[in-house]
Amino acid sequence: MRHDPIPCADRVGRLRSGFPETDALLILSEKNIRYLTGFTGGDGALMAGPDWLALLVDGRYVTQARAEVPGMEVFEFRKRADGIMAVARRNGVGSIGFESSVLSVEEYLRLKEALPEVALLPLPDAFQLFRAVKDDGEIDRIREAARIAGEALAAVRGMIRPGVRENEIALELEYRMRRGEAEQVSFETIVAAGANSALPHATPGRRAIADGDCVLIDYGAVCGGYHSDETCTFVVGRASERKREVYRLVLEAHDRAIRAIRAGVSCGEIDRIARSFLDAAGLGSSFSHGAGHGVGLDVHEAPRLAAGREEILRAGMVVTVEPGVYLPGLWGVRIEDTVLVTEEGCEILTPSSKDLTII
Amino acid sequence: MRHDPIPCADRVGRLRSGFPETDALLILSEKNIRYLTGFTGGDGALMAGPDWLALLVDGRYVTQARAEVPGMEVFEFRKRADGIMAVARRNGVGSIGFESSVLSVEEYLRLKEALPEVALLPLPDAFQLFRAVKDDGEIDRIREAARIAGEALAAVRGMIRPGVRENEIALELEYRMRRGEAEQVSFETIVAAGANSALPHATPGRRAIADGDCVLIDYGAVCGGYHSDETCTFVVGRASERKREVYRLVLEAHDRAIRAIRAGVSCGEIDRIARSFLDAAGLGSSFSHGAGHGVGLDVHEAPRLAAGREEILRAGMVVTVEPGVYLPGLWGVRIEDTVLVTEEGCEILTPSSKDLTII
Repeated sequence: MRHDPIPCADRVGRLRSGFPETDALLILSEKNIRYLTGFTGGDGALMAGPDWLALLVDGRYVTQARAEVPGMEVFEFRKRADGIMAVARRNGVGSIGFESSVLSVEEYLRLKEALPEVALLPLPDAFQLFRAVKDDGEIDRIREAARIAGEALAAVRGMIRPGVRENEIALELEYRMRRGEAEQVSFETIVAAGANSALPHATPGRRAIADGDCVLIDYGAVCGGYHSDETCTFVVGRASERKREVYRLVLEAHDRAIRAIRAGVSCGEIDRIARSFLDAAGLGSSFSHGAGHGVGLDVHEAPRLAAGREEILRAGMVVTVEPGVYLPGLWGVRIEDTVLVTEEGCEILTPSSKDLTII
Repeated sequence: MRHDPIPCADRVGRLRSGFPETDALLILSEKNIRYLTGFTGGDGALMAGPDWLALLVDGRYVTQARAEVPGMEVFEFRKRADGIMAVARRNGVGSIGFESSVLSVEEYLRLKEALPEVALLPLPDAFQLFRAVKDDGEIDRIREAARIAGEALAAVRGMIRPGVRENEIALELEYRMRRGEAEQVSFETIVAAGANSALPHATPGRRAIADGDCVLIDYGAVCGGYHSDETCTFVVGRASERKREVYRLVLEAHDRAIRAIRAGVSCGEIDRIARSFLDAAGLGSSFSHGAGHGVGLDVHEAPRLAAGREEILRAGMVVTVEPGVYLPGLWGVRIEDTVLVTEEGCEILTPSSKDLTII
């Protein structure tokens, strides 16, 4: 599948227009650099002045950078801070706004010492929501990633039975996603059975599924750099009344949150809807993370759907909705979809059924 | 295979003894926290006072932290900076030494504002070499990772032939490593054919191998958290005289560097030996990265074997040796082993033959 080309010039222009008084912007996060230029390598920097751009990379990435970003100046450095200094001096820069959530204190102190005449301006939140609204090309990629992932899960569903180990299922699921043309998996797949399902970020281990277990599978695929993110929780064999009840409550929290999503609603409000429902059911303290997060070039990106977050959902944002209830030492249930925010509501991009499935 | 338990108390004692005048140390890197405590989760912090320790984690990791680090206080936070402040205040801390290569400027500024009475001391290099000398349990894990990886490569060797795509080989190789009980792969496997082999960090794509191609495979497995790292470059079909010649020169640079490794030699000297040999052959400018790096809980860690590095190799360090020559637009050759430094020399841990292999 071919995707639309990346509208780099538009994106850089939009970025620059947010900081008319800063001589240069210093972009350091790999994903922001990729978003703005198409460069897929690592350890680089992008500097953007009012009428100049420079992509700074180390020797390993020079050839790749020239191929991926034709027409942009590629500056080779040995130490990144030295490269930043050289480009800043050459362009007579008096102030640099930088991603303060990415730059380390070590590199910051080095830059400050070497560029005493330059004002270094931390921009903690400047880039937070910059990538949050997706264009059609980005949505296509996420949709395709979700489809590839969902087909892979359907293909390994038959493995979810007593005696099979968590890591065997995780391995086959990842293998299927990549055979299905995912370029990568979104993150290390979580397959958590029994008491492990009560760990929101369990690593698949050698635990074998037992009759009656909850099996929580949190997984995703990457397509054209864009991630999907979905969680299904299955019950194997006998499902106790308590498990059915908790599943029903988590699903209701999930459904209520999804029904509330549309452009104009705050992120905190979505979290509040899921959380207050579980609170009322006496399960609020077992829901130990936010209700969701943005998904794109990063599997976790802005906005966060968490208590008190005032960011407003806009059409084109892609976010997860993922309430969960975790009973330490016993079991847990999480139900997660990735959805596209629209003016009127949302479209669910992750294809797997979220009805209680007893295998 | 069972491994020795992690000697956490020894390691924390060794760390603390390096900073007798700092009230508390703040450890933020996941791998350093794992090394010191055994906790395998993310986004946490470890604070170490003269006679107290606290592991700070967010809600997702509380259960896991308590299980993995029995006996240590687990402090739950919503925002990490708030957790650090609370623990610092409670322990009457006047100074905190922190990992300045890990802490972001954003979090640093937040801590500085909230703890005006506390001296925040950047420790840029304090932890660099802290994990460099491996104990027997660590060496066992790396050895096992290298064995699992090597067996997987041997199993997929038959796929390396004209018409097969880079990403098909990468996928099968990773699948074999994980079926061979690797808990993860060390990094996204590089399989780079033809002109892609001239990109030191190529991502496997849909390029099919052609007759005469160099096929560069850089890969590794993870076992008990510890990585292996190895690169083999094969030639498929007709090997031109120039390819044979360059291969021979890179292998000689690799062999000379390995013969020079032993406790007491500086890291820069190893790089110099490989580089000066390729320089004399007219290929120095095509060797665009350092000669090697430490391997352990991170696939790239201290020490770096690069020009001018004065760190001294010590018995028990595990490092790669990986000279390469890259001819942009044409092809490249890299040959890499992971070796254990000993008093008298080194032991090669990666099992694959490095002789020129024409398939």
